Amino acid sequence: MTRQRRAPARGAAGASLADVGEDRLIAELLRGLGASPLVEVGPGDDCAVLRLGASRWLWTTDAQIEGTHFERSWLSAVQLGRRAYAVNASDIAAMGGTPRLCSVSIAAPASLPRRDLVAIEKGIVAAAAQDGAVVVGGNLARASELSISIGLLGEAPRQPLLRSGARAGHAIYVTGALGGAALGLAHLERNPRSRSAAARRFREPSPRLTAGRALASARAASAAMDLSDGLMVDLDRMCAASDVGARIELAALPMSADVRKRDPTLALQGGEDYELLCAVSPRQESTLSRLQRELDCPITRIGEFTEPASGIVLADVHGRECAIGRLGFEHFAQRRRPRR
Amino acid sequence: MTRQRRAPARGAAGASLADVGEDRLIAELLRGLGASPLVEVGPGDDCAVLRLGASRWLWTTDAQIEGTHFERSWLSAVQLGRRAYAVNASDIAAMGGTPRLCSVSIAAPASLPRRDLVAIEKGIVAAAAQDGAVVVGGNLARASELSISIGLLGEAPRQPLLRSGARAGHAIYVTGALGGAALGLAHLERNPRSRSAAARRFREPSPRLTAGRALASARAASAAMDLSDGLMVDLDRMCAASDVGARIELAALPMSADVRKRDPTLALQGGEDYELLCAVSPRQESTLSRLQRELDCPITRIGEFTEPASGIVLADVHGRECAIGRLGFEHFAQRRRPRR
Repeated sequence: MTRQRRAPARGAAGASLADVGEDRLIAELLRGLGASPLVEVGPGDDCAVLRLGASRWLWTTDAQIEGTHFERSWLSAVQLGRRAYAVNASDIAAMGGTPRLCSVSIAAPASLPRRDLVAIEKGIVAAAAQDGAVVVGGNLARASELSISIGLLGEAPRQPLLRSGARAGHAIYVTGALGGAALGLAHLERNPRSRSAAARRFREPSPRLTAGRALASARAASAAMDLSDGLMVDLDRMCAASDVGARIELAALPMSADVRKRDPTLALQGGEDYELLCAVSPRQESTLSRLQRELDCPITRIGEFTEPASGIVLADVHGRECAIGRLGFEHFAQRRRPRR
Repeated sequence: MTRQRRAPARGAAGASLADVGEDRLIAELLRGLGASPLVEVGPGDDCAVLRLGASRWLWTTDAQIEGTHFERSWLSAVQLGRRAYAVNASDIAAMGGTPRLCSVSIAAPASLPRRDLVAIEKGIVAAAAQDGAVVVGGNLARASELSISIGLLGEAPRQPLLRSGARAGHAIYVTGALGGAALGLAHLERNPRSRSAAARRFREPSPRLTAGRALASARAASAAMDLSDGLMVDLDRMCAASDVGARIELAALPMSADVRKRDPTLALQGGEDYELLCAVSPRQESTLSRLQRELDCPITRIGEFTEPASGIVLADVHGRECAIGRLGFEHFAQRRRPRR
């Protein structure tokens, strides 16, 4: 079956800013309706924060849908299961938590080979087990396209990292490198069997659980969220939640040599990297630099939060402000070292 | 868009017994993998039973998928939202719990009017609020067909009702009347705007939360589950979980006059009634009959659990055993009163 690729509303590379409107529609609709002594943080963040008995839990749900988030030819069934789990674990990571309990809802066409269904479940169960989480139940139904919707409950840290804690003057940091998954997506669209490092990056996202926990427990970040829809879209969400603006230094964006060579704008607009975006206050900078050595991934300063009226500004190495539509390779150039 | 109606794997009228095989495949795959001190009951029952901190919680997930569970022409968007919530609340009801926290994952075609999306969410939020539950978050993605996957966390009773507690000699009871939703489905397939009582039964299921809680708190049932896929399919699941057989008295099956007249086999094979199926031990019978007066719905004895070797047996009013394929109207006839 061939089908035109659909514009994704969430969680896929190239999500448009129009889709953020839909996000807000839903958030608005739900906001205020979540009043319950059991709910500390309701709709609008990476996870809900629940107070159940004496303990605090994180709850998230995310789906992988054939034709929107993936094509079956792009990855194995086990990889698909692992990926469906990982995009949820990434939400738990963003708040500094630890995945514990997983619920799986699969909708599949009757033509899906049973061994693929088993392999998807195995992928989910194995990925969950690696993080110390277990699958506790689920649901299976027929549909015309394959989709996997996962619910994940995680232990919350003492102070969960929210999207709303960024303030003007706090530095903007990201973990890892950006744009790799989107480059991988481009490879897979040309060649579903691509073995490039970028394709692997798309197929096998690694939620930043260790980094998220470290940032939360050391209180080294004032806000965090995961990057599922690309830096521009997700930064806009954090700015809205925190009521701040942001200035991004294009030359500082961490990206692989491949992304830098092929299309550095992917670091701004490519989704599905599942890295963490954080705000770090001036006081927290020293904690962060101490932490940096203990983390299992790089964490890079890419700009600063500003007053809300400034909106989101992109600046090149010369301090010139750039519009996203006009970005060329040269804007991402790092300052050359002076010749000796 | 017209599309052939697909054979459903779960939660829809007319699910085939072959689909139970798929249930078991998944349950087998997951069984034993759910070992965690947080999990008291893992995959295979209506809900997972979780021990979070000092409190015990029920967790379930279920989806409503366009073309499998409904067509958009059959019900309003608000009704669809309410229905998507209700099928989950029914799982909580089956274990005697109370819905508290709800998570919503919607996949929708780009062509879905925004007002429909808002109405679906409103239906979910309103139905949850009626039970004292709140929506705490969710997810929205594009897909070629509309689907709504809900996760529901509920407070557990002291002793949750499981599928596995039935023993040979325990009576079989069901709440309400059977087959109405399947008759409604038939009406809707002929006339999407049908205003029949049966169509309403399909559009607006009423989870048996009050009955479930009463049965659990009075310890009036040894096992329970909800009827989503039809009595034969679901009873088979309870028999498998409890390792028992069952004998159903056809003449005792509660059904509306409409169902009795049109097709009484719907009471055995029609799904989506969302009534409760219970086992009641001889000792519990007196508690149940006391309870019967307090319940907001009838509860009817329809047979008895037997030794596992007997399998599931259907008996007509003369005690003759019947095969399901050969059932005619006369098998459901109640014994005539002797003429005076």
